[in-house]
Amino acid sequence: MSAETDASETTEAIMAATYDALCECGYADLTTREIADRSPVSTAALHYHYDSKRDLLSAFLDHLYEEWEAEVAGAEDRADDPAARLHALIDAVLAVDDDVDEPLQTAILEIKAQAPYDERFRERLRRFDERFHEAVRTTIAAGVADGTFRAVDPGAEATFLTSAVSGAHVRKASLGADVAEIRGRLREYVDERLRGDRE
Amino acid sequence: MSAETDASETTEAIMAATYDALCECGYADLTTREIADRSPVSTAALHYHYDSKRDLLSAFLDHLYEEWEAEVAGAEDRADDPAARLHALIDAVLAVDDDVDEPLQTAILEIKAQAPYDERFRERLRRFDERFHEAVRTTIAAGVADGTFRAVDPGAEATFLTSAVSGAHVRKASLGADVAEIRGRLREYVDERLRGDRE
Repeated sequence: MSAETDASETTEAIMAATYDALCECGYADLTTREIADRSPVSTAALHYHYDSKRDLLSAFLDHLYEEWEAEVAGAEDRADDPAARLHALIDAVLAVDDDVDEPLQTAILEIKAQAPYDERFRERLRRFDERFHEAVRTTIAAGVADGTFRAVDPGAEATFLTSAVSGAHVRKASLGADVAEIRGRLREYVDERLRGDRE
Repeated sequence: MSAETDASETTEAIMAATYDALCECGYADLTTREIADRSPVSTAALHYHYDSKRDLLSAFLDHLYEEWEAEVAGAEDRADDPAARLHALIDAVLAVDDDVDEPLQTAILEIKAQAPYDERFRERLRRFDERFHEAVRTTIAAGVADGTFRAVDPGAEATFLTSAVSGAHVRKASLGADVAEIRGRLREYVDERLRGDRE
């Protein structure tokens, strides 16, 4: 096994430990010790790789982004029809069986609340927001071009959908609101407002 | 001046001091000392009135709710036409000149992130969410009844609008996103999707 593989496996193990620790402790109470306890490396080794908790969490957000982005890209590839693709994108970011991810969503909300104070968090959270906005915008633009959708402004519609998704996440984490309901509403929005289906 | 007036003035002064301290320090770094320093009462007196920082913040959320609710109720009363009333409601919760409130919104996002861990915060934040949802729902129901709006499901539309507003707030606070843009989109949504205006 090469040293490179070793390093990559160590990183994977640290990221998995960060995920577990974050879900169990939340962001505020998270310590590098809690992460080290769940990983094959010592606290000292963890500090060797990452200067601070924020440093480690920034790397974790990058790691999370890679996994999340693969799902978004998968949704984009799943269907040729722009309306079906938009449905798949909404499903990808608003999974209904998201109870398993609830502790992570709670921790992510804490990280969002830290973003105004931390440029690195803000930059990373912006990547999620911008990638989803871009996926929605290009899908709507394709739908307008091929006549699937009415002649709407793709960027403006994407901003609206991105905000609704973001609101669904924060309302779910902070209030326990029902994500399935808003997901259904977004699908209707695509069908009625964009596609112009009439009841 | 009666003792009651005195007590009410003290409470007002403490709430004003909490607002200032919260805007300057954020939620995480807020201490009762920081609040006492900005108010006419001592830290000891503050602890006499409120057991903990969370206790004081819960009272502050109640105070904030009263002010916010008056604006929502004002928007409801402003116009007879359901579409105009819905525009006024959206304007009330998504003021464009909200840069003055930016530090408060940042602190509110921190409190939202605490809500999963604190039932009292969650209950109070739910009041804001439910009051807005209710205002939107009854306005849309009135619009459907008088023929201003198409025959949509008022509750479902209200859920959608409430999520979009919540997302606009969190995207503004955490990413610096443009609230004016989403506000414009929500107004268009009312005019096109609900009222059925066609371009």
